[in-house]
Amino acid sequence: MLDIDDALRIVLENVESLPVVEMPLEEALYRTLAETVRSDLDSPPFDRALRDGYAVRAVDTASAPVELRIVGQVGAGASFDGVVRAGEAVQINTGAPIPAGADAVVRLEDTTDPGDRQDGICTVNEGPLPYGRGSERTVPTRDDDPQRSTQHASAAAMVRIEKSVRAGKSIARRGEYVRVGDTVLAAGAKLTPVAIGAAAAAGAACVKVYQQPQVAILSTGNELVDIETLPTGPQIRNSNQFVLDALIRSCHAKPMILGVARDDRAQIRAMIERGLVADMLCITGGVSVGAFDFVPDCLCKLGANVRVNKISIKPGRPTIFATMPDGKPVFALPGNPGGTVIAFELLIRPALEKLQGRNDVTHACHRARLDGELDSAGERQSFIPAKAAVRDNGEFEATPLSWGGSGDAMRMADANALITMPAGSPAVKKGETVRILLLDRA
Amino acid sequence: MLDIDDALRIVLENVESLPVVEMPLEEALYRTLAETVRSDLDSPPFDRALRDGYAVRAVDTASAPVELRIVGQVGAGASFDGVVRAGEAVQINTGAPIPAGADAVVRLEDTTDPGDRQDGICTVNEGPLPYGRGSERTVPTRDDDPQRSTQHASAAAMVRIEKSVRAGKSIARRGEYVRVGDTVLAAGAKLTPVAIGAAAAAGAACVKVYQQPQVAILSTGNELVDIETLPTGPQIRNSNQFVLDALIRSCHAKPMILGVARDDRAQIRAMIERGLVADMLCITGGVSVGAFDFVPDCLCKLGANVRVNKISIKPGRPTIFATMPDGKPVFALPGNPGGTVIAFELLIRPALEKLQGRNDVTHACHRARLDGELDSAGERQSFIPAKAAVRDNGEFEATPLSWGGSGDAMRMADANALITMPAGSPAVKKGETVRILLLDRA
Repeated sequence: MLDIDDALRIVLENVESLPVVEMPLEEALYRTLAETVRSDLDSPPFDRALRDGYAVRAVDTASAPVELRIVGQVGAGASFDGVVRAGEAVQINTGAPIPAGADAVVRLEDTTDPGDRQDGICTVNEGPLPYGRGSERTVPTRDDDPQRSTQHASAAAMVRIEKSVRAGKSIARRGEYVRVGDTVLAAGAKLTPVAIGAAAAAGAACVKVYQQPQVAILSTGNELVDIETLPTGPQIRNSNQFVLDALIRSCHAKPMILGVARDDRAQIRAMIERGLVADMLCITGGVSVGAFDFVPDCLCKLGANVRVNKISIKPGRPTIFATMPDGKPVFALPGNPGGTVIAFELLIRPALEKLQGRNDVTHACHRARLDGELDSAGERQSFIPAKAAVRDNGEFEATPLSWGGSGDAMRMADANALITMPAGSPAVKKGETVRILLLDRA
Repeated sequence: MLDIDDALRIVLENVESLPVVEMPLEEALYRTLAETVRSDLDSPPFDRALRDGYAVRAVDTASAPVELRIVGQVGAGASFDGVVRAGEAVQINTGAPIPAGADAVVRLEDTTDPGDRQDGICTVNEGPLPYGRGSERTVPTRDDDPQRSTQHASAAAMVRIEKSVRAGKSIARRGEYVRVGDTVLAAGAKLTPVAIGAAAAAGAACVKVYQQPQVAILSTGNELVDIETLPTGPQIRNSNQFVLDALIRSCHAKPMILGVARDDRAQIRAMIERGLVADMLCITGGVSVGAFDFVPDCLCKLGANVRVNKISIKPGRPTIFATMPDGKPVFALPGNPGGTVIAFELLIRPALEKLQGRNDVTHACHRARLDGELDSAGERQSFIPAKAAVRDNGEFEATPLSWGGSGDAMRMADANALITMPAGSPAVKKGETVRILLLDRA
């Protein structure tokens, strides 16, 4: 029987990337890039003010405090037409381009109005800011259009520079962050929110990404009833369909619910075939060695190449991974809810990454302090649903849930992690160290 | 100026829950429960086999190895009508109900066929399993309907029990996991995939949840251009709209893009009013003390109560949180991309949780080993985009990204964490410990 690392390796070796499609950036959240995104401009695109304040000639501030004459103002999106000369300053906002002649920005907080010695808050022709700061002060402008700034003030509005600055202070130079042609995102990167923002800034309005995987879900078993039904006798609710649908969406893939096939070869076969229009098929139930477990046989009669059959994990041992003649991956999972969740996290989630060109998929196992007790693991690597939290010291603490094992769907409800115990591990006491896999990753 | 903990506290105190709605469970992934989900049945619903094998009377196995007469078979979803008597066994599959008279299950692996001493694999009228295991063996049945099992075999098919078992072995008793009426999910729980599976098993086909928040996004600034445009002069691409849209969706909330307002009071005011049809409004740009920063004034003229105005964080200092007269929360963020992302993670994500009734929201700070160097923090708590990975020892390692600061959208691309440095922290060397906030949580 394979251990989980070998099983994962085999899965990844046998799953090929989906086709590449192009889509608008705003539709590509959580997709995986199939191309390199390069910047089409310098960033910053111009020498830019990093703070609100005054653009000055640094040399003019060497003997601060010093008064400079305000010759204009420039907001983000505007430009100052003139040149800052000796003794002059231009009021400037964060993000605005540095006027010619200036080589530093003095922060507003390091200036005062020589008239009233108050905080250097400047408003434009308006009363005090409602949240109670600042005095009213107008800076003469040629007109009220913020797009253009004056070259000369009609009255001599002055600003007092309280602190000297060196050349370059509070300025980000053109191209200082990124230059035209630099790589912003490599092929294979997942488009997380910050990656989307970066691609937007780089001008990548459309991106080539791997297609979103569509995953068909087939539940099998005579015992299954809808969740609306109160089960009687031997019946069991089809909760696996719901959890698989949710897990697939949590991977940003698209589920396709086939429904329930009874323990009947013809029906199972027909529904498998229907499911194979998708990029991947997940089947629950009917995979063990029991008398009514037809799924493996049906798969094989359809030409499936079974590559993983049983894994030394608990729960989830009777897990099958196969590829169809056209290469499509099929997972056949045990009917029990615990095995379904564990097999999904360990194998299917990575397989979905691989379908999208990402091969660097591992099971990231975090250290955690055990808050509870664990029995020794048997012959198989064990996975125990747990609640993990971050302690004040920055380390994880994991509390195993009271859980009846693989048949217990309801008491997995609060799990956000799986404690993993290698085969043969001894019992673990409260306060000792365990390893956990986190659930609920984006 | 507030520190981030106080700012978060004020935000949470001033955000109220959205209305409660009822929806089908399959539409409720990542919604927050507004009711308690209780089980409507016992779990297991009947005494159930935990393994494939044979249901027996434990006392009959006391002197194993012993041969028992197979009197029937029962798969999951079926039932055995008779009673297991002394010397008898019923072949049973995982999940099937335990027949009357039996009180233990012997695993298939612990049995053999007395005829051929091979592994106890039983197939039903079929050839060997295609993946190469087992022998062919038929169990006489009254008919071929797996729903019904025989009471008496016409020929004496026997099974050899190799191992004795105690009463209860490999059986889960009715109600052992959960009883009717037990709480499965508390109000306030987030419907993660495993929670969805638990609710499905509990029969919660419809659930009462807090409404999905709709969040309006307004970008302001004369300098903004569409991302398709190659910026010239002082222009900057509107990447904030893209990153906020993505961040809001990553919180499983629904974005509403208002577009761009120029630095014009009337336009800003009109678009704010339009955005207030949503449950929350996020505005970027125009919040600082610069001359063209109209957003706070417009908000206040609309009756906003500014509750947070500037936070001692870097980036993101000029962040405003306000509530409108009807209680709606508004965040006004700086125009720079770094401030947008950091303010979102620290305040808006928690606020979205609070809108959905979750008050237990904290900034979970993990310990990590620094792989790089960090300058001392200034007067404000600093947040540095980083790449965090799990080392072989199970601990985090965090590599600060080369980053130009709050104006540098493109080099945040690969961040999956933020290193947090308290105000006044000294420089940190490679190998020392830092704290990180993880991005990309579900």
